Amino acid sequence: MQWLHAESGYELWLRYKPLGNNELSESYRQRNRKVLFPGETGSLAAAKKELRAGLSGLLGIDLAETETLEDNMLIIGTPQSIPLFRKQAFYPEIEGLSDEGYLIQNSKMEGKMVTVIAARTDIGVLYGVFHYLRLMQTTQPLEQLAIKENPKLRYRVLNHWDNLNGTVERGYAGYSIWNWERLPFYKEQRYIDYARANASVGINGAVLNNVNAQAKSLRTDWLVKASGLADVFRPYGIKVYLTAKFSAPREIGGLDTANPKDPQVQKWWKDKVEEIYSLIPDFGGFLVKANSEGQPGPQDYGCSHADGANMLAEVLEPYGGIVFWRAFVYQNERQVDRVINGYNEFKPLDGKFRKNVFVQPKNGPIDFQPREPFHPLFGGMPDTPLSLEFQITQENLGHAGHLVYLGTLFEETLQSDTYENGKGSTVSKVLQNYQKTHGISAIAGVPNIGTDLNWTGHLFGQANWYAFGRLAWNPDASSAEIAEDWAKMTFSNEDSVLSPVLRIMQMSREAYVNYTMPLGLNHIMNYDTHNGPEPWHDDPVWTAFDYHKITEDSIGVNRTAGGTGAVLQYHSPVYEKFENIKTCPPEYLLWFHRVPWDYKMPSGKTLWDELVCHYYKGVDEVRLMQKLWSGLKGKIDRERFDHVASLLEYQEQEAIWWRDGCLLFFQEYSGLPIPADLEQPEHSLKYYKTIPFPHDWKGLYE
Amino acid sequence: MQWLHAESGYELWLRYKPLGNNELSESYRQRNRKVLFPGETGSLAAAKKELRAGLSGLLGIDLAETETLEDNMLIIGTPQSIPLFRKQAFYPEIEGLSDEGYLIQNSKMEGKMVTVIAARTDIGVLYGVFHYLRLMQTTQPLEQLAIKENPKLRYRVLNHWDNLNGTVERGYAGYSIWNWERLPFYKEQRYIDYARANASVGINGAVLNNVNAQAKSLRTDWLVKASGLADVFRPYGIKVYLTAKFSAPREIGGLDTANPKDPQVQKWWKDKVEEIYSLIPDFGGFLVKANSEGQPGPQDYGCSHADGANMLAEVLEPYGGIVFWRAFVYQNERQVDRVINGYNEFKPLDGKFRKNVFVQPKNGPIDFQPREPFHPLFGGMPDTPLSLEFQITQENLGHAGHLVYLGTLFEETLQSDTYENGKGSTVSKVLQNYQKTHGISAIAGVPNIGTDLNWTGHLFGQANWYAFGRLAWNPDASSAEIAEDWAKMTFSNEDSVLSPVLRIMQMSREAYVNYTMPLGLNHIMNYDTHNGPEPWHDDPVWTAFDYHKITEDSIGVNRTAGGTGAVLQYHSPVYEKFENIKTCPPEYLLWFHRVPWDYKMPSGKTLWDELVCHYYKGVDEVRLMQKLWSGLKGKIDRERFDHVASLLEYQEQEAIWWRDGCLLFFQEYSGLPIPADLEQPEHSLKYYKTIPFPHDWKGLYE
Repeated sequence: MQWLHAESGYELWLRYKPLGNNELSESYRQRNRKVLFPGETGSLAAAKKELRAGLSGLLGIDLAETETLEDNMLIIGTPQSIPLFRKQAFYPEIEGLSDEGYLIQNSKMEGKMVTVIAARTDIGVLYGVFHYLRLMQTTQPLEQLAIKENPKLRYRVLNHWDNLNGTVERGYAGYSIWNWERLPFYKEQRYIDYARANASVGINGAVLNNVNAQAKSLRTDWLVKASGLADVFRPYGIKVYLTAKFSAPREIGGLDTANPKDPQVQKWWKDKVEEIYSLIPDFGGFLVKANSEGQPGPQDYGCSHADGANMLAEVLEPYGGIVFWRAFVYQNERQVDRVINGYNEFKPLDGKFRKNVFVQPKNGPIDFQPREPFHPLFGGMPDTPLSLEFQITQENLGHAGHLVYLGTLFEETLQSDTYENGKGSTVSKVLQNYQKTHGISAIAGVPNIGTDLNWTGHLFGQANWYAFGRLAWNPDASSAEIAEDWAKMTFSNEDSVLSPVLRIMQMSREAYVNYTMPLGLNHIMNYDTHNGPEPWHDDPVWTAFDYHKITEDSIGVNRTAGGTGAVLQYHSPVYEKFENIKTCPPEYLLWFHRVPWDYKMPSGKTLWDELVCHYYKGVDEVRLMQKLWSGLKGKIDRERFDHVASLLEYQEQEAIWWRDGCLLFFQEYSGLPIPADLEQPEHSLKYYKTIPFPHDWKGLYE
Repeated sequence: MQWLHAESGYELWLRYKPLGNNELSESYRQRNRKVLFPGETGSLAAAKKELRAGLSGLLGIDLAETETLEDNMLIIGTPQSIPLFRKQAFYPEIEGLSDEGYLIQNSKMEGKMVTVIAARTDIGVLYGVFHYLRLMQTTQPLEQLAIKENPKLRYRVLNHWDNLNGTVERGYAGYSIWNWERLPFYKEQRYIDYARANASVGINGAVLNNVNAQAKSLRTDWLVKASGLADVFRPYGIKVYLTAKFSAPREIGGLDTANPKDPQVQKWWKDKVEEIYSLIPDFGGFLVKANSEGQPGPQDYGCSHADGANMLAEVLEPYGGIVFWRAFVYQNERQVDRVINGYNEFKPLDGKFRKNVFVQPKNGPIDFQPREPFHPLFGGMPDTPLSLEFQITQENLGHAGHLVYLGTLFEETLQSDTYENGKGSTVSKVLQNYQKTHGISAIAGVPNIGTDLNWTGHLFGQANWYAFGRLAWNPDASSAEIAEDWAKMTFSNEDSVLSPVLRIMQMSREAYVNYTMPLGLNHIMNYDTHNGPEPWHDDPVWTAFDYHKITEDSIGVNRTAGGTGAVLQYHSPVYEKFENIKTCPPEYLLWFHRVPWDYKMPSGKTLWDELVCHYYKGVDEVRLMQKLWSGLKGKIDRERFDHVASLLEYQEQEAIWWRDGCLLFFQEYSGLPIPADLEQPEHSLKYYKTIPFPHDWKGLYE
């Protein structure tokens, strides 16, 4: 009771709560009594501070530094900070690590059995310390450690969609954590804790501002503010990036063009980049959204995406800077299938980009839907490094109100086989392979972070930030194992807590798909908020009918070779699998095929019955999640229990809103019944078309 | 170490840290072993929860409820919840309390010596419990208690300037704490803690949105969101108010006019108010900024402020709702002295408002400057209840970067004597007197609250929120004693901590005046941000020269009877005191008088030398504050120590910026030297006119 708000969630997965006075803790204490850990600056200082906090919190012991070797001690550093490493048998292993890798192992040094955390670089040491703390947080044995870790992707970046006025586009956790007003001079504790959280999972870059950019982010005064964040992040290995508004030379540079072929424009960017590096010597580079959704770009001047990207890349290159050029472009023309647009725009440019450019597609070809097949550019751009963009913020997955563990979604995309070079050419391998072929590799996530006390609005949203980081480090990791680590660090190592929490997490994303857009349905959410059902939206600017094409006979979009041809963008045999309605996975059925209501599904049910079944299953799954959660009452703290319980209640109501809204709408076309043994919709379709909220509010809308 | 972020400041003054195992705590424990406290809903439940948290935190004991009377026990309730009260000698005292008052006393009941917290109403009980906890937090004796409290003003309201998109006008502590996206369904812990903090000082109303209003705040969907907050606040005695945009009938009502004389407009407001009360049965009322700074109002239709206010008041009246009508109106005409404008507009309307209207002037006649004489409407509107508006957010007092305790400013205004009815007619008494003459009384504060972890950006900003609340309850309270309570609850009861903290707080506002706008100077801050010096601002729209009227000979504005006549708005003898340069208090000298540079001040110095002296004194005072603070190293937690220390460093630099920027500018006119024995400005005036920041940033601007 002493700390009223102790479990606000602010501590994230770095809570370092006492492991208690059991045998295991005692054995941990024995192994952490003394520490050799020279280094008082930069990443080493950050690592030592973290270790001190961890030992104190988990084990109740102080960090006791010594310079003499003893049995059971901890030795932490690089060959520079601990020259003794150079004499050890494992020294070549240290030298063989990448710039960010580390070793954690039990070794004999000078006759003493010690635990070594070693790296070639200071940041590797910090990563190693976080890993070491995680071993204790998750009650792993500290004996016979032989851990060697190198990140499998080099750029692991968060793409904040934070506007300069503090709002966050598609952010559901309050407002931007960047307090621009007081930057660069005042450094908030939250910045440090943000950096700690990122470093603990290996995220090494942050694009500070929205891809729907404002040019003023490149003005001197704003660069100085950004440099204040860069100073905080530096010890944690996080580089600062900015979005570059393509029209900046016109908007803030006093030029009358932003044509990438114009020498004055090129000079403006060159000077701007020079200025940036004078303020932020380790600046990461630019993220650009160009010629998409109203943003300016090189096509405004008859130039290609490659022309635009290369102009920026050329001026960044001397400083080691990178360009991330988004492939999320589509024409707002109803004649063009949006699904095929990105591929068609970028495929012809393969190999035309400078070596420090990533083209960045989203995970799927539409726009962060609850489920999409992988973007066909993965496997389709062998000569251009691609960075994959995931969305961690739940724009189309219930905002911060729904418990949806995205680790499974990330894994589904990463493990999708593109067959680019035969079987096993997963998206994950495609990304990793660029490291070999081009010397660079990357992944990006649009975070769910805001000023809410618990950072992510929904406590379980933290798991998505966490999982993104862990999968960025190792895109072949298991999302289930990552969930387990997170749940242990966030809640408890007790199986009676873990088991229901993990079951909830693992079922949660499929539940969301079921009650919103099952069987390959997509983009039928509310046009404006992207939350709640609106398959009926139909106006001259935008219509959901393009996405479901519902009629009295059928539903779904024919994207086969005989349809829009989207399937043709995939390699064989992926193409054939999607093309054939019999082999097309049911979860993509209506994405690729137009299907009659009475089509017999593999289950034996008709399409209509199968669809109804999925929607009802989704609601039932939320109810099961509620039941599992309520079993945790008394087993976890009241504050977090109530928080999640109240959101699950909210989620159940929204799930019903989705289910009933969609099915009543579909029913207007199919004319088929919702089986009588199922709970029937409480309201009319008209009601669902009217309410601004999912819930009936004191009868206002009926 | 266990709680890394324990001292983030989130707990405000309700930290309930252990008082330790000394004699005093033991005596407290004896008096709190058993509690009779029936009531499980509403304010009683909130009070019990608070007591439980307080006893647990402060004393390490559980709240032990009992139904039998024992010596030394605590008995808490109303005559309704504890009928036994009706038989006690002190029962008439309870019945004599106001709707929000309470008693705390040691009494004999049924032969047992007990401590009683009693009130006529449930909310009185909650206020009493907070007071009782404060006694322990500030280590007061619990013997011979005979406390009887009634608030001296009835409406004690925060006026949030929160926009519906989450930004806060003139907010410096992050963004709005209202997460509209998730309202009304998801109730954040922060809302409850906000309500607790307010209730702990007796604040009983919150205007949720900005006076520069958006009509959509009155739309049904937004009202429903507001009702979600009202539900959270209700047990804490806080009513929800909204700003009413005068053009709402046009903007969201589909009418083509907002003319208050139009029956359709009147009906629209009547229906709207009916709707509001159906959603928020205890809705407080409207705050209106009309015909000021571009806001629409009744004058758009040839009607008066009274016409506009009365139309709204009439439809609110049946529900007990109130209109706060701001008197902050000025014409953007250089011919008119802005200082006299509010009085001239409203004085003729005295007595023309309906009984449920407050006219709300700011504390001074300009606009929340670091120092202003009291607004002459106080004492000038005997027939119209006035609500005084203070600004808690430091718009013109260094934002959240400067340590400025505003309790002294609030007290200075409240204790200013208007002489409305002879000596002793202080502003405070004027406000209180309306309770007798009109049955209502009010005070308002524009808060400094945002999403920052510590709520107010600067830890010491919490003291201003706290002081406003305490002074709203009792406008004759001592700001020094309030500071002491706050400091004890926030830091420590140890004199070695308290004494420097209180010295810093008590000197801080005068220091700010000294290094920014001493001797009655005003409105020479940056035109846009209102932070930093810009006495040189001069453009067709707005010029600082209207406020200082500097020439080679003189500085200051002649507002005497022979000048703009502002002094004439004050009663005698205040008028004579301000009118005569010899009796005009030096702190208002340049406010009321135009003074030659060589004018001899009472100190014997010339005006120029006195001005220089004040600016230098201000910087020296900040340095003294730094010194006092650095003496606290090790005596308070590292996190809060560093936070304040880093902000004081920032404040020192800004103080120098102000001093040097202003004096170099004034010097261009006076041609007089800054004495050689003082530290000379490091930069040129040109530099200060150029930099967007107070600090030299890597030589960028020189």
